[in-house]
Amino acid sequence: MKKFFKLLIEYDGTNFSGWQRQKDKPTIQEEIETVLSMILNQKIRIEGSGRTDAGVHATGQTASFEALTTMTSQRLKKSLNSLLKVPIVIRECVETESDFHARFSAVSKIYTYYIWNCSEPRAIGAAFSWHVPRPLDVSVMDACCNILLGTHDFKAFENAGSPRKSTVRTMYSGKAFQEKEMVVVELQADGFLRNMVRNIVGTLVDAGHGKISEKRFLEILESRDRSLAGVTAPARGLILSRVNYP
Amino acid sequence: MKKFFKLLIEYDGTNFSGWQRQKDKPTIQEEIETVLSMILNQKIRIEGSGRTDAGVHATGQTASFEALTTMTSQRLKKSLNSLLKVPIVIRECVETESDFHARFSAVSKIYTYYIWNCSEPRAIGAAFSWHVPRPLDVSVMDACCNILLGTHDFKAFENAGSPRKSTVRTMYSGKAFQEKEMVVVELQADGFLRNMVRNIVGTLVDAGHGKISEKRFLEILESRDRSLAGVTAPARGLILSRVNYP
Repeated sequence: MKKFFKLLIEYDGTNFSGWQRQKDKPTIQEEIETVLSMILNQKIRIEGSGRTDAGVHATGQTASFEALTTMTSQRLKKSLNSLLKVPIVIRECVETESDFHARFSAVSKIYTYYIWNCSEPRAIGAAFSWHVPRPLDVSVMDACCNILLGTHDFKAFENAGSPRKSTVRTMYSGKAFQEKEMVVVELQADGFLRNMVRNIVGTLVDAGHGKISEKRFLEILESRDRSLAGVTAPARGLILSRVNYP
Repeated sequence: MKKFFKLLIEYDGTNFSGWQRQKDKPTIQEEIETVLSMILNQKIRIEGSGRTDAGVHATGQTASFEALTTMTSQRLKKSLNSLLKVPIVIRECVETESDFHARFSAVSKIYTYYIWNCSEPRAIGAAFSWHVPRPLDVSVMDACCNILLGTHDFKAFENAGSPRKSTVRTMYSGKAFQEKEMVVVELQADGFLRNMVRNIVGTLVDAGHGKISEKRFLEILESRDRSLAGVTAPARGLILSRVNYP
């Protein structure tokens, strides 16, 4: 019996070369496909909601696949979690309609970026944040997030080397806020370009340090020129936290 | 000029053989002493507030030492943090009176234990909690924490192999509470016996699973018999979060 499944996946990306299968490199996609193929005794290929780069984490990555099986989704989830080694965990496994596709059915994604804003680094959980020692003005960063809202050409925040039909995306929500020493940036859009969140965060940090104004931030967005934006923030602070479906 | 210093230390204990210096094993004490001796160009020995076991973490460990130096405490802190590799971070460095001693001057300590209470394990931060899949009744665990309050002989919760003058300690506060999937146990006492927190947590989990009643928990405490208490909870969930001084 042909069945269609959706997975909700959490992972610590520190020691992986990203989501997408690559030759001779450890990837999350390959780990899951290998275990699924073993459990279901057939070659399984999964479709992620999108790639995450090397070192990027997820609490809400999704993937879809089909299989010839009578196994229930609950049984499959248990088998997966008993065979997958932490740091990859299947949080949910559900059956879907045949036309569900983790990438094409997605309507928006939420990425969360963690900045440890403290003169000293963080010993516990250092693998899940970017250490920025100098104090940040979070209200300026939040105001810059507001500038991103709506439909824009985000080419200024895209890294080279990723051919796309269009660099226009719609940002549904964006905010920066502080929880003790941690500054959190949360962005929701219908899609993200290559390194877009990390390039936005690098530029937000320039704004938080007073190096650029809100006006300049808008100019950078409108310029469509990557060379004007800030550094690419490190992968370790980035978490794909949610993929939304209709 | 002879000066006396106090350090406030955070560390991820995952890959260390505990706090205390040991031959041919990586310990937090040795890492800090090596770097301090290099900075101050003299052999430095530090006194921790107490040992933490292999794999146990700290956000609030303290240590004291003396040195012949003109260096300020702020300068010393900066040098330490630039030479120490994460996952050890000096959160504070202050000068003290000559009679301050991290262990003997301490009046109480707070340990925090994190239990990930969810059918699936945790992918992110798995190194900082104990995965207990079956649901816990946190109100029963909290009631058992109440039983621990006051002065008792805690021998039932002490692991063998640690000669002590007395196994009587005073528990100043104790509670268990839930934050989403995480169950947190927080204990404050004038001192802790070997593996005491981890043995208490193992027994609290038995109570949370309904294996033992509150009445039985009290009997175990009063028995002074380690064999009646629960398993020793794993080191990875334990954090020394604070050492209090007068």
